[in-house]
Amino acid sequence: MHAIDQYREEFVAYLSEKVKTKEPENLYDPMVYILGLGGKRVRPVLVLMAAEIFGSDHKKALDAALAIEIFHNFSLVHDDIMDDAPLRRGKKTVHEKWDLNTGILSGDAMLIRAYQLFENYEGSTFRELAQLFSKTAIEVCEGQQYDIDFETRDDVSIPEYMKMIEYKTAVLVGASLKMGAIVANTSQDNKKKIYEFGRLLGIAFQLQDDYLDAFGDPETFGKQVGGDIIENKKTFLYLTSLNAEETAIQLGHLYSINPPDSRAKVETVKALFESSGAAEQTRLEIEKYTHKAFQVLNDLDIEEDKKSMLRKFGENLMNRDV
Amino acid sequence: MHAIDQYREEFVAYLSEKVKTKEPENLYDPMVYILGLGGKRVRPVLVLMAAEIFGSDHKKALDAALAIEIFHNFSLVHDDIMDDAPLRRGKKTVHEKWDLNTGILSGDAMLIRAYQLFENYEGSTFRELAQLFSKTAIEVCEGQQYDIDFETRDDVSIPEYMKMIEYKTAVLVGASLKMGAIVANTSQDNKKKIYEFGRLLGIAFQLQDDYLDAFGDPETFGKQVGGDIIENKKTFLYLTSLNAEETAIQLGHLYSINPPDSRAKVETVKALFESSGAAEQTRLEIEKYTHKAFQVLNDLDIEEDKKSMLRKFGENLMNRDV
Repeated sequence: MHAIDQYREEFVAYLSEKVKTKEPENLYDPMVYILGLGGKRVRPVLVLMAAEIFGSDHKKALDAALAIEIFHNFSLVHDDIMDDAPLRRGKKTVHEKWDLNTGILSGDAMLIRAYQLFENYEGSTFRELAQLFSKTAIEVCEGQQYDIDFETRDDVSIPEYMKMIEYKTAVLVGASLKMGAIVANTSQDNKKKIYEFGRLLGIAFQLQDDYLDAFGDPETFGKQVGGDIIENKKTFLYLTSLNAEETAIQLGHLYSINPPDSRAKVETVKALFESSGAAEQTRLEIEKYTHKAFQVLNDLDIEEDKKSMLRKFGENLMNRDV
Repeated sequence: MHAIDQYREEFVAYLSEKVKTKEPENLYDPMVYILGLGGKRVRPVLVLMAAEIFGSDHKKALDAALAIEIFHNFSLVHDDIMDDAPLRRGKKTVHEKWDLNTGILSGDAMLIRAYQLFENYEGSTFRELAQLFSKTAIEVCEGQQYDIDFETRDDVSIPEYMKMIEYKTAVLVGASLKMGAIVANTSQDNKKKIYEFGRLLGIAFQLQDDYLDAFGDPETFGKQVGGDIIENKKTFLYLTSLNAEETAIQLGHLYSINPPDSRAKVETVKALFESSGAAEQTRLEIEKYTHKAFQVLNDLDIEEDKKSMLRKFGENLMNRDV
């Protein structure tokens, strides 16, 4: 087995070799650009790792890994348009560097290109990969739609929120692992369980993202701490705080103002997240999903050292060390 | 064999049954809306007809036909955003009725939904359909990109223009027919030839569209006659006129002005299209591609009455009677 860094390096080398520009350049240059911006490449690494864990040469999974990474970047290009985001990984977003139309059309081409990569697999592997991909891709779109809808709704329930983060983020983590399992042609039971591990870990990761956005260390979190509060985002912390009636009234006010200096607002909201018990409840929920994910690992029909490798990866992910 | 109207009616009934809204409604309502706006349903009818011509029950091809129609409407939704078009078939476009983000995201979901419809086919049929679909879809994106690029270029050659209309329009006509042939599991040679028939006919149709935009009967053409001239579009007529040096200078001027009353400009440009010989050359080119398409039909390994049905459909299409 490789270390994570080795999978990543091998994947990035494969990506550079396979993703090149061609005519018409305005369609393909943005694809090369966004895929070259870097990132942790968590999803493709998971595809490669899962393939090897279930007994395949991880090289066989490179095309599936590339499909997942291209899809992920397609969703970033279109989401950045929808969020009107100027920057992605510190560089201009595609629609800023080119224009709106280029962002839409090159995104479309990326989605199709992702499907084409499955053509490198035979018979039932091709079918299984393409079906899982379509199911996951539709769920990611649904998750994004729920996220947009929630912005203008003030009656979002916690189960609805959980479904949104599951669809928008977690299913792609599950699908990445399952794709490796499909390439390795392991049992249906293993495929199902590795998907479940990824899905649960993905939910834990996203809940933690909500938590760290408020309580993370500005030195290490990467994003602006307090960003969700400044943007009045209905995160898990926020929705859980509403259960305390007194807090709900105060938050209702705080989330209706946009002060130019947001420091006082951020600190007040964080104090309410703590005093209402929402911070503690979020920590417990993260713990719960992480634990559930690791429980599923125990049942996998693979050697113990491979389970511990997945456990290690999960821990690194949750410690933001990947 | 059915008459064309019967295929269309059966397809529309199938579409109504299969394309329904669900949660999240802001993702799926636009899909139901755009697919319900009507249109001639030429592409799905071609899928059904081809399936039956090559010996299958056309009902088996309904899912492939629906995939093609959903893809076509996906491209309309995203193209309408790029063209900033307010109306489609006399009704509001999706991004006008909802908003930009809804147009992008529901379009994405439609593209994925189209792929999912192929899952209703077994083994190699699934694979052949999905591969042809991806290849065609990428070409349609490339065609759209060339079309956008040509707007700001003044050195577009006629071969480049021909490639653009082939990709943007004609390949989907060829693919529609070939999908029917794939569902019917006919010979590779028949599949290749029916695709070629559709591709050539699609090019003839698009060249005729250029021609009728200038010289069509305002009563029957459907679109505003002279629209391409008013928008200074580099059509086949325009590019062919540039071959006459004198005409090129005059056109260069006329295509740099946007008079509020465009009637005089339209008439002058039309006169130049005629005097330069471009109108005649366009008529010959339409004739040439139509003839080439019908030539390919002769070589198909099917009964004569089926060939004549395809010929009839081709003639109706070119006479704008479908």
